[in-house]
Amino acid sequence: MSSAEHYVIGVDYGTLSGRAVVVRVRDGEELANAVHEYRHGVLERSLDVGETTGVALAPDWALQVPHDYVEVLQQAVPAAVRESGIDAADVIGIGTDFTACTVLPVLDDGTPLCEVPELADRPHAYVKLWKHHAAQAHADRINALAAERGEAWLARYGGRISSEWEFAKGLQLLEEDPDVYHQTAHWIEAADWIVWQLSGVYVRNACTAGYKAIRQDGAYPSREFLAALNPDFADFVADKIERPIAQLGERIGSLTPTAASWTGLPAGIAVCTGNVDAHVTAPAARAIDPGQMVAIMGTSTCHVMSSDTLREVPGMCGVVDGGIVPGLWGYEAGQSGVGDIFAWYIERQVPASYARAAAEAGETIHEHLTNLAAAIPAGGHGLVALDWHSGNRSVLVDHELSGVVVGLTLATTPEEVYLALLEATAFGTRKIVESFEERGVPVADFIVAGGLIQNRFLMQLYSDVIGRSIGVIGSDQGPALGSAIHAAVAAGAYPDVRAAASAMGRVEHAVYVPDARRGAVYDRLYAEYSALHDYFGRGPNDVMHRLRAIKREAQR
Amino acid sequence: MSSAEHYVIGVDYGTLSGRAVVVRVRDGEELANAVHEYRHGVLERSLDVGETTGVALAPDWALQVPHDYVEVLQQAVPAAVRESGIDAADVIGIGTDFTACTVLPVLDDGTPLCEVPELADRPHAYVKLWKHHAAQAHADRINALAAERGEAWLARYGGRISSEWEFAKGLQLLEEDPDVYHQTAHWIEAADWIVWQLSGVYVRNACTAGYKAIRQDGAYPSREFLAALNPDFADFVADKIERPIAQLGERIGSLTPTAASWTGLPAGIAVCTGNVDAHVTAPAARAIDPGQMVAIMGTSTCHVMSSDTLREVPGMCGVVDGGIVPGLWGYEAGQSGVGDIFAWYIERQVPASYARAAAEAGETIHEHLTNLAAAIPAGGHGLVALDWHSGNRSVLVDHELSGVVVGLTLATTPEEVYLALLEATAFGTRKIVESFEERGVPVADFIVAGGLIQNRFLMQLYSDVIGRSIGVIGSDQGPALGSAIHAAVAAGAYPDVRAAASAMGRVEHAVYVPDARRGAVYDRLYAEYSALHDYFGRGPNDVMHRLRAIKREAQR
Repeated sequence: MSSAEHYVIGVDYGTLSGRAVVVRVRDGEELANAVHEYRHGVLERSLDVGETTGVALAPDWALQVPHDYVEVLQQAVPAAVRESGIDAADVIGIGTDFTACTVLPVLDDGTPLCEVPELADRPHAYVKLWKHHAAQAHADRINALAAERGEAWLARYGGRISSEWEFAKGLQLLEEDPDVYHQTAHWIEAADWIVWQLSGVYVRNACTAGYKAIRQDGAYPSREFLAALNPDFADFVADKIERPIAQLGERIGSLTPTAASWTGLPAGIAVCTGNVDAHVTAPAARAIDPGQMVAIMGTSTCHVMSSDTLREVPGMCGVVDGGIVPGLWGYEAGQSGVGDIFAWYIERQVPASYARAAAEAGETIHEHLTNLAAAIPAGGHGLVALDWHSGNRSVLVDHELSGVVVGLTLATTPEEVYLALLEATAFGTRKIVESFEERGVPVADFIVAGGLIQNRFLMQLYSDVIGRSIGVIGSDQGPALGSAIHAAVAAGAYPDVRAAASAMGRVEHAVYVPDARRGAVYDRLYAEYSALHDYFGRGPNDVMHRLRAIKREAQR
Repeated sequence: MSSAEHYVIGVDYGTLSGRAVVVRVRDGEELANAVHEYRHGVLERSLDVGETTGVALAPDWALQVPHDYVEVLQQAVPAAVRESGIDAADVIGIGTDFTACTVLPVLDDGTPLCEVPELADRPHAYVKLWKHHAAQAHADRINALAAERGEAWLARYGGRISSEWEFAKGLQLLEEDPDVYHQTAHWIEAADWIVWQLSGVYVRNACTAGYKAIRQDGAYPSREFLAALNPDFADFVADKIERPIAQLGERIGSLTPTAASWTGLPAGIAVCTGNVDAHVTAPAARAIDPGQMVAIMGTSTCHVMSSDTLREVPGMCGVVDGGIVPGLWGYEAGQSGVGDIFAWYIERQVPASYARAAAEAGETIHEHLTNLAAAIPAGGHGLVALDWHSGNRSVLVDHELSGVVVGLTLATTPEEVYLALLEATAFGTRKIVESFEERGVPVADFIVAGGLIQNRFLMQLYSDVIGRSIGVIGSDQGPALGSAIHAAVAAGAYPDVRAAASAMGRVEHAVYVPDARRGAVYDRLYAEYSALHDYFGRGPNDVMHRLRAIKREAQR
């Protein structure tokens, strides 16, 4: 027997695992959550799936196995419901969000090509994860041709589309494995594929269609453009990616009996449009008004912000009509490496003596270094770094850039370099905020979400560097909560995302306030960062590209 | 009863210890050696000497205690003689070499001012070690004024004198502790002070007078120049440093009874002119002909080369008539940090997992990293670094520069960064060699000496980078052997240094031969190094100086 209280399920598909959360519709209270790690994780060196073993993958490849996503529905959803103690019959909807652009080739019925036995040993038959970076040469050609032809859509992506997106990865598929390409009925975002598995309906969500598939003003790149790239690519849009568009928060269909059996949820409940992990977080932080920027800070950082103004901001990832909230322009920018850089440093550049000291103090090495860094006065290390260890997503849009540390001396300590890396990511964020403002897209609020919000020192540093108060989301599971909020809208519990966010989202404003004295020092260090940013990133010294080229030749 | 075989003693005064070697005059055979560590080492944080404790030293200070040098004579010399099994009566001479510019204030009788009880707590009364870098502001003023006045001697020092040298340190003494300055009868190189202790005679050796005291064409900087720096400095030359000059290898006097009692050597034997550790090594490697460059590679690298040509090479440390061998122009250049940088990296930036793997393999971390680095193809790391962690001695002559690493990615390993640092020091050497050649001072041979010659991978790397064969000195104790060679000349066993070097020195030519394929890659990486060298070192981006300034302000 069903009670008066209703619940929704949000499922957040990350890079290594999927997380389900049970949320009360009335107030957004998160009752329980459960995580399921993908059985195959990320395939980067070789294809080892079932009986397929040892097929080597080239550098910069990153694949996934689609059935791992289904297992999240089978494992994490029932676990979260069980843990919450609710009656599954009181669940009225399910919403999902995904990494993007994470894209796979499927048959007409949605079967992934990698599940076709004779294609199981073909790397191109698998999911290309967002961080598959092996299509850079294809992206370069798309960008060069678009610039040459003056394609109007190019400016909507800051002047450059990414190798991570559908067109670059699709062109790579065509040219490297035309057989798999021709067997592909749909080249589909995982965000839409999982909704298809839940509802039996395949539509495209407005978010990934805009940000990742170059859909602008209702149209994709033209057949002529695609034919000029490669004659066999001419019908890519019509054959592989075109599909009806659904707005975020829309009800796509009903939970199928099969999906109900996977999840233990009632068949027939609302299934919401697919969404992207970053974008879906904005309503969870109640940040859906124009000028409210949300930075989702984890291994990388994604910046999303709605605006009533359309401007073409150089180096942003994209601006999409309804890309975050229906009815507003959604802007996206990002930093390819943030927590990833700190983790790399901890693993590769911190000596044994620090590991011992951290262990003795009962701290993680991150905590230990953070505490030591907190004792260094601003500018006291004599260092400035560039945070491009994983390339630069915004505002340079160049994954062949790399990291730099300037100012090393024989007195430089590990915590000083660590601090310089923390600062570098803050400078990168400031560069993005300033780019928006310089182009007439005001940034009114700055709100943070994601795993790095646990590091209070880092958050204060960001406040000092960007010279703004920082608000903090009131949930540890922002994307999953965001998906649940959208599910509530899809289920009809709220008239729109704005109303649902207002009731179910959580944020605390001005948790961090900039310190003027430290800010003055950081203004000077930021000027140094900016000079190096332009020197290495905008052409005066293209050493980073040449080093990559030399490296590739050396490794042949 | 004395046999027909004769011996000489060479004593090498390093940064942390002194080493005595017993050498057979006939053929240079090293029979035994002994080391004595300085009781007080290097004083860098506070003055803790006897009853004086806790006097804090400012950053960049580095002091020593002169009596520690006497203890080397008392301990290491008798120990080496004992170990050799020779009869001390067969020793015919003693020669010494010292770090430079290592300089101290003494009374008219040679008593160090720090041994005057009422001055024992005055830092300026102690020996200023070569790496005391707190007189940079004074050096800057000397350079600016010399440039402004067009002083002819400036070009003999590559256009800039160092904060390490006698004038900068002397001006610092005057301005920071005028009382000690006025009590100073002689501002004396430790190289000459130790010879005074052995022989009772104070003369200046031609080497340090030229390289460290700006003596050129028989004259020091003028009274007018000094008065313009500071009126009280006007008589610095006449009052504090002027003295008869002795050529290298000259007999200064005879071993005094006191020194004989310290050392156990016969009173009256020949005491040789003082000399500098790097310069004295050239004859030990038989490298005294024009164009034979010797690189003494340890914590730092010093390059010395004789030539029959006088040229003014920008950025060299100095060119001195008879600075290495009487009758030839002696050129000196150097790299402030080499082994020091590798040691810093090992201590500060290599993770626990590598320490464990090295221990399991029974290797030092240096050996472990070197073996891993040896497996990386040239250019395979995608990195380029600048080796300025301890500043740049040649060709930029700027101790406020700092280290840089460009090209870091999340895949970068510790051994890759280590390799980039090894390479950076090789590029720094190439820069020096090319500077000489560009200015018409040909470099015919390249011969290495010093502790780093043990690292065969590093030596091959240098050969590949500089594109030349490399010869290796045939002694592990190059400076001490060099001092012994000079002692043999002073004792009259050979007519001159050339003849003594020919009989007693040892070198193996072409031990390393450049690999053309690796050399071609290194030519490309060197081009990147050169571009960054000029960008950060020659003015286009003065970020390193600004970072130092910000750091100094932050630490106030």
